Amino acid sequence: MKTEILSELRASGQYVSGQQLCERFGVSRTAVWKAVNQLKKEGYEIEAVQNRGYRLVSVPEILSQKELESIRKTKWLGQKIFYYEELDSTNSAAKKLAEDGAPHGSVVVTETQSAGRGRRGRSWASPRGTGIFMTYILKPEIEPANASMLTLVMAMAVAKGIGNMTGIRAAIKWPNDVIADGKKICGILTEMSAQVDYVNYIVIGSGTNVLTESFPPELEGKAASLYMISGKKFHRAELIEEINEQFERYYNVFMETQDMAKLQEEYNQLLVNCGEKVKVLGAREEYEGTAQGITARGELIVDTWEARKLVASGEVSVRGVYGYV
Amino acid sequence: MKTEILSELRASGQYVSGQQLCERFGVSRTAVWKAVNQLKKEGYEIEAVQNRGYRLVSVPEILSQKELESIRKTKWLGQKIFYYEELDSTNSAAKKLAEDGAPHGSVVVTETQSAGRGRRGRSWASPRGTGIFMTYILKPEIEPANASMLTLVMAMAVAKGIGNMTGIRAAIKWPNDVIADGKKICGILTEMSAQVDYVNYIVIGSGTNVLTESFPPELEGKAASLYMISGKKFHRAELIEEINEQFERYYNVFMETQDMAKLQEEYNQLLVNCGEKVKVLGAREEYEGTAQGITARGELIVDTWEARKLVASGEVSVRGVYGYV
Repeated sequence: MKTEILSELRASGQYVSGQQLCERFGVSRTAVWKAVNQLKKEGYEIEAVQNRGYRLVSVPEILSQKELESIRKTKWLGQKIFYYEELDSTNSAAKKLAEDGAPHGSVVVTETQSAGRGRRGRSWASPRGTGIFMTYILKPEIEPANASMLTLVMAMAVAKGIGNMTGIRAAIKWPNDVIADGKKICGILTEMSAQVDYVNYIVIGSGTNVLTESFPPELEGKAASLYMISGKKFHRAELIEEINEQFERYYNVFMETQDMAKLQEEYNQLLVNCGEKVKVLGAREEYEGTAQGITARGELIVDTWEARKLVASGEVSVRGVYGYV
Repeated sequence: MKTEILSELRASGQYVSGQQLCERFGVSRTAVWKAVNQLKKEGYEIEAVQNRGYRLVSVPEILSQKELESIRKTKWLGQKIFYYEELDSTNSAAKKLAEDGAPHGSVVVTETQSAGRGRRGRSWASPRGTGIFMTYILKPEIEPANASMLTLVMAMAVAKGIGNMTGIRAAIKWPNDVIADGKKICGILTEMSAQVDYVNYIVIGSGTNVLTESFPPELEGKAASLYMISGKKFHRAELIEEINEQFERYYNVFMETQDMAKLQEEYNQLLVNCGEKVKVLGAREEYEGTAQGITARGELIVDTWEARKLVASGEVSVRGVYGYV
């Protein structure tokens, strides 16, 4: 009942009479009154004015199953939300949930990760209450070879979602980071469980620094949070919802062709490397060139002095020559 | 203690004096006597003769952690064995164990699967006490694209292991079945968890029909067990050990080149399709030709009347034109 009433108040933005709520959900005035009181206890500021009803004034900065469900506007993404106070890693939990039959579009969210991971097993700091640590579970009918492009789709959703909600100009650092003000604010880790030619499931994890106030010295100048950049404390649940909406939209376009063909242009507008000098550090070679955007297959186009090269995401590190991480 | 004494008796094959066992493991005569009695209760036939000691006469047809550990002669495969009375599926359990850090070479074994699976989610019947339902957990440093060849390596290990232990001529039906007497006796399902260019872990599941006495009508003529073919009841734990030893050997060769280059010749000798007419049912085309063996990349070479084709394992079904499944 709490979730439904919260959704209703949130959606209206105005006063909603107790009578309306009773009729809408088929419950007594007392039941409504009780639910509102519980919400207040949890930190929701709800104004009650005689003859007008209830109005949601502010929401607490919490992540909870209820909060996330009440805010949801997406169609298929987040139909099932798995919220945990703490996890080893959202990707690891998501893989187990997928193994146990969690449906396509499930979202795993936690307040803190004890063993958050980035690419190739690198650790990812996830202090409680500072960020968005979440993983999508997807079960698309897709070639395993196309799965890694979903990292690019997610990067678009994060960059766009942040821009829409906060006004901060977030950009993509190909293939799996989102940066703002030249510093990393989000990392993405896509993993897949597959048979030879068949994807069992894909998990896309993302860690976004939202409220972090400072980073350890070794990350200074390299990492930032939305708070550090803007001085504003953004509401994480709302940002999750915004990112989810963007992802749902981009994903649907991606699935039409199972590649970046229809997203390429918009991707390139969000790409910080575009037109910039980059250094490509591959396993076998190392070179500098100018990044020109991505191909429909999601490869990074780099023009060197002698040739055009296509960089497949893989164990390749692309560095901006002019400073950004 | 039971496991150690069982291993010792098994290894010796002769009488081993109680005194020897005491000294070997640094325990009292009473402790040895107790362990032997427990083993007897579990169905091990152990003869005790004065002045000579103990001798293992026969082992019960059971699968247990102890039995599997005591029989183990492999170096790294099966260093950790996870035995369960029942599982939904050994692959699914193995993936969760791998996620939780189970080491390279772990082996998951169960007596029965409630949701055993074959390729593309097809179900695999796994009645209690009739077969070998097991999954290897591997964590090799390998390109994700090379992982599917491990199905071929496993097929070799199963065919060779069965041949060595039972004398039954088992052959490989490319890519993931082992057949004998024209009928399927084993199916293999390889799955992988990977990042873009990095394998988290690979699980190789196999279901082998050992003691099955009959199959449902729809599988008659298509499936068989080692018992149905030979009239003999082979000991499953011993067959597991034999297959594991073969796998370990073939796997080590495979890893030298990360492909089938050095195993190709032996594989082709075990390949039932070799030199036979086959029908290839692909997603886009369908044709007949003569199978000529595999390439170093594990593709099936098929000569049609107009061209040589390389069939990648994938959603391709290869049928023998002359009867076998």
